Amino acid sequence: MKYVTLETEGKPAAGILEGDEIRICAEGEGARDAVIDAIVAGELAGWDTREGRRVPLSAVRLLAPIPLPRGAIYCVGKNYHAHADEFHSSGFDSSSKEAVPKHPVIFTKPPHSVVGPETPVRGSLDPTGTVDYEGELGVVIGKAAFQVDKASAYDHVLGYVIINDVTSRELQRQHGQWTIGKGLDTFCPMGPWLVSADEAGDPARMELRTEINGELRQKASVSDLVFDIPTLIETMSRTMTLHPGDIIATGTAAGVGIGFTPPRYLQRGDVMRVSITGLGALENTVE
Amino acid sequence: MKYVTLETEGKPAAGILEGDEIRICAEGEGARDAVIDAIVAGELAGWDTREGRRVPLSAVRLLAPIPLPRGAIYCVGKNYHAHADEFHSSGFDSSSKEAVPKHPVIFTKPPHSVVGPETPVRGSLDPTGTVDYEGELGVVIGKAAFQVDKASAYDHVLGYVIINDVTSRELQRQHGQWTIGKGLDTFCPMGPWLVSADEAGDPARMELRTEINGELRQKASVSDLVFDIPTLIETMSRTMTLHPGDIIATGTAAGVGIGFTPPRYLQRGDVMRVSITGLGALENTVE
Repeated sequence: MKYVTLETEGKPAAGILEGDEIRICAEGEGARDAVIDAIVAGELAGWDTREGRRVPLSAVRLLAPIPLPRGAIYCVGKNYHAHADEFHSSGFDSSSKEAVPKHPVIFTKPPHSVVGPETPVRGSLDPTGTVDYEGELGVVIGKAAFQVDKASAYDHVLGYVIINDVTSRELQRQHGQWTIGKGLDTFCPMGPWLVSADEAGDPARMELRTEINGELRQKASVSDLVFDIPTLIETMSRTMTLHPGDIIATGTAAGVGIGFTPPRYLQRGDVMRVSITGLGALENTVE
Repeated sequence: MKYVTLETEGKPAAGILEGDEIRICAEGEGARDAVIDAIVAGELAGWDTREGRRVPLSAVRLLAPIPLPRGAIYCVGKNYHAHADEFHSSGFDSSSKEAVPKHPVIFTKPPHSVVGPETPVRGSLDPTGTVDYEGELGVVIGKAAFQVDKASAYDHVLGYVIINDVTSRELQRQHGQWTIGKGLDTFCPMGPWLVSADEAGDPARMELRTEINGELRQKASVSDLVFDIPTLIETMSRTMTLHPGDIIATGTAAGVGIGFTPPRYLQRGDVMRVSITGLGALENTVE
C-alpha cells in the first residue's frame, strides 16, 4: 500500500494511492495527522479495506505522508562506506576520528522540520550559505521494538519513505552536535508516499538516486549500508524502545555537495530530486 | 503557577499545585497529555482560574508535568564553564576540540525517554556500566519563536522545570553523536512541576544542586551559563522555529561522575536528587 497525506479543495485528507487515484480514508479536522495517529494506534492496516471516495492524484497537493512526526526522526551519519570517506575528508566531520564509524552515529532532526513534496526548502535560512542535500531511505517503525535482535527486526518495520536530510555544513561543523545544522525549518523533505513493507520488498535491492537540476549526483544500492536496517534496529533497541511512528533515516550515499572540490553547495532555484526503487521520487526546490 | 500531571486512584489527571493541595483541571482519558495539549493550543493560562476539586499532594503519584513531549527535547552540551573543563578533560568529549565551545552544542533526547519524579531510572539498561547524572534547568517554550532576538526571548518562555539528563558516558563517546548515549529508556527524569515564568522569577538568580545519596555533587548558579537563555533562544531560533511545548535543557554544571578520578558512576540503589531554587526537587533512584 502507498499511504498519502494531501490537501484537496484546500482541506487536509489522507488515504491510499491506487494507480493514479487516491482512495480517501480520512478527511476533515485531524486528517493531516491521520496517518501518524493510525500508526500509533496500530490501525493503519485497517485502511486497506476501507471504502472511500476517489480523487485523481493530479488534482491534489501531496503533503509529507507524516507531516508532523509524533516521536523522533532518528538519522544515521556516515552509513555508506564511500560517503563516510568523502565526508571525513571534507573537514566538516565532528563525529569521530575514523572515517567509517565502529558504532552507528545517531542524531535527530526535529519533527517540525518536515515538509512534503514540491514544498520549497528555505536555503536562505542558512546564513553560512553551505546548504547540501542528502538523499536517504527512511524506515518507519510500526510495532514497538525493545531489545529486538536482527533476525526479527523487520517484524517491527511498517514501511519506507524517501527523506532528504538537507544540511547546513557550516552549522553542522560549528555546533559539534548536529541538531542545529540539520534542524533548520523545511530541511526535512519527506515523501511522496509511505510504502508498506510488503509492497516495498527487500530494501537491500533498492537503489537510491539523487539528481540536482537533472544531474545525477548520488547513486547507490541500499545493500551498501555500513550498518544495515536489522543492525540499526538491534543496536538502537538494545537501550531505547523504538515506538510506532518513529522514523530512522538510514544515512546518505557518496556524492553530496561537499564531496566535490570545491564544494558544490545548493543555490536558490536548484531542484533536488531523490528517488528510490519502488518508493517514487521526492522533488523540492531550494529558495 | 505550578502545573502538575499525576495519577490519583489509578487514573491520570492534571492541575495546579496550591500549597499542599492540587486543584484538578483535567481528568479522564487524555488527562495524561492535558498539559502539553494546553501548551500547544495556547490555553494553559486558562487553567489558572478554572474551578476544580482538590486532592492533597500527599495522596497522588506525580508524573512528569509533560509525560510525553510533543516536540523536541533540546539539550545543551558543555554550557557551564567549570563543567566544560571537566568534561573535556575526561576523554569522553566527542563534540569539539575546545573545552568551552564557541557555539552552543545542541543535541536532543527522545520524547519517550521522559519519566517523572520517584520513577526508577533503569541504569541496568547501559551495558557499559557508565551511567552518570546531569542536573539541569529546563526551559519550556510557550509561544512560537522564530528569529527572536535576546531582548524579547523571555516573551516566548512559558516556564521552567528540573531535568536530569542521565547519560551513558561510554555510549555517548562510542557513537560520536549523543542520541544513543542520552536516549536510553527512563534516562530523562523531569519534574516535579512546571513552574510558570512569572512565579519562577529571574533564572539567573536560581541555584542548581545535585545530591547523590545525600552527598552534594553539583552546586552552581544559573548565572554561570556559558550561553544564557536569551542567547540560546536567539541562536536556535535564527534558523529553526521553537514551538510551544519544545523544551530546552540548558546544560549541566561541574560535579558529574566523570569529573572525579576515577569516575564515580551511578550504581544500583543510588538516589539522585536535583533541586533548583523555586522549582522544587526531583528525586529518582537508579535500578
